[in-house]
Amino acid sequence: MDSDSWLLLCRTVRFGDTDAAGVLHFPRLLDWCHQAYEESLERFGLAASEIFPSPHHSPAVALPVVHCQADFLAPLVVGDPLNIRLEPRRLDPGSFELQYCFFKEQQPAARALSRHLAIDSASRRRCPLPPAINRWLEASAIGQGIQPV
Amino acid sequence: MDSDSWLLLCRTVRFGDTDAAGVLHFPRLLDWCHQAYEESLERFGLAASEIFPSPHHSPAVALPVVHCQADFLAPLVVGDPLNIRLEPRRLDPGSFELQYCFFKEQQPAARALSRHLAIDSASRRRCPLPPAINRWLEASAIGQGIQPV
Amino acid sequence: MDSDSWLLLCRTVRFGDTDAAGVLHFPRLLDWCHQAYEESLERFGLAASEIFPSPHHSPAVALPVVHCQADFLAPLVVGDPLNIRLEPRRLDPGSFELQYCFFKEQQPAARALSRHLAIDSASRRRCPLPPAINRWLEASAIGQGIQPV
Amino acid sequence: MDSDSWLLLCRTVRFGDTDAAGVLHFPRLLDWCHQAYEESLERFGLAASEIFPSPHHSPAVALPVVHCQADFLAPLVVGDPLNIRLEPRRLDPGSFELQYCFFKEQQPAARALSRHLAIDSASRRRCPLPPAINRWLEASAIGQGIQPV
Repeated sequence: MDSDSWLLLCRTVRFGDTDAAGVLHFPRLLDWCHQAYEESLERFGLAASEIFPSPHHSPAVALPVVHCQADFLAPLVVGDPLNIRLEPRRLDPGSFELQYCFFKEQQPAARALSRHLAIDSASRRRCPLPPAINRWLEASAIGQGIQPV
Repeated sequence: MDSDSWLLLCRTVRFGDTDAAGVLHFPRLLDWCHQAYEESLERFGLAASEIFPSPHHSPAVALPVVHCQADFLAPLVVGDPLNIRLEPRRLDPGSFELQYCFFKEQQPAARALSRHLAIDSASRRRCPLPPAINRWLEASAIGQGIQPV
Repeated sequence: MDSDSWLLLCRTVRFGDTDAAGVLHFPRLLDWCHQAYEESLERFGLAASEIFPSPHHSPAVALPVVHCQADFLAPLVVGDPLNIRLEPRRLDPGSFELQYCFFKEQQPAARALSRHLAIDSASRRRCPLPPAINRWLEASAIGQGIQPV
Repeated sequence: MDSDSWLLLCRTVRFGDTDAAGVLHFPRLLDWCHQAYEESLERFGLAASEIFPSPHHSPAVALPVVHCQADFLAPLVVGDPLNIRLEPRRLDPGSFELQYCFFKEQQPAARALSRHLAIDSASRRRCPLPPAINRWLEASAIGQGIQPV
């Protein structure tokens, strides 16, 4: 399976993403980032229920975002079709980061980054990343021609 | 304590509430409704942790919204100061509804309604409303000059 | 072109759509409704810029939502794949409504409705629906086996 | 007027701010930042309509966010009362940044930053900050004991 199938996504700017200036309201981009991360895991073959909590199942490891940032390079307006390139990267055995580049007509229109920490759900202490996330990180690193950590 | 202190609230339309038409993006009103409901409980003296779940405490009874509706009577723009009047009403021993009227310069600008059902968190079956919610409903009914059910 | 191609859509519940009860936070459903409406127009062949305002173009007719409502029939959790069936219907020459049914494993999990009014952007008065919206309404009515108004 | 009156704000974590992990869904913090910025301007005495566009008035200068970032230091749960300290700072004649520190029980629970650029609404080119924003930046710098730029 080509890593583009889970690292290259699409989305369209919707009316509710804009504000009265007529362009993307900036916090929405961070919503898009987390949704792209979820879609990437799903396309890679990981069920949401394996990674994210729901009323009847709490995974042993939570992966909260401890840092995020974004740069806005060009205005995004309703109807703009975007391509999103994800670059996940393990930082150490207990954390990873995800870079996102949003392209509009092949030009970067925004960049973002989220950093995720593995936390044991019971003890609330740092712990190793879950094996499923490691598989996704390793396959993604190979797809990007990066040496796995 | 005058019931206005927990049934008459304020909020200001913020930039992120608007869309590219320059006015309130309609789903935000439903967000405001739930926030007004939470603020009303808080002002009445009920801690959020008594009513809403958090990682370390799950109340025995959940109060999911099973129906909502809203009517938009006038455009709302960034900076508009609004008054919100809440009218909570018990429907039966296991449910209540909350009417919301949003005023802009003393004129109704939007109306909304949410209907909440008491659900036993363990069995996921209908159950009676929690005592704390009943206290708030009864005090609110008296404040509105409504005969308690 | 089969009307299902623009009236039958898909989406997946994402983590940010849920709240601490572990299920869909109800106002998000209304966000999904407007996004489904936009996607339907797009799939039918109407550019967002024809219908919705952006910094460099304001369509002559705005289509604000004047009423919305929703019923929640079953809990929706992260990762749930949903099918959305849209039923647009002209109410009179200057307004239409859109019914939405959200299916989870072939069962209705939520229903919603939005009602839209045509408003002349310059005079802020009611006016006829734009021709493009009328084409979409008529083609949708035929697809649903409904007699056009 | 003490600068704390417009640089020290309050807000409470609401149920819709949380996700199924029971804690703040991280992009909401960026929404809070922009709302805090708007509230600060308002408390300082600047009308929203002077700074932000609405259907009937477009200020000559737009102030889009070109960069944002956030660090999450402690979990935030529904009902948590927060104090927010804002530190606005002019970067050059055409841009400023705003630092935000969110305190929970006197401890920093999150930090964030937004960077804003002045753009001439007509030409879409960089331009000087509007005089009203400069007044707010200068009064804030004095309040913080910072030498104005």
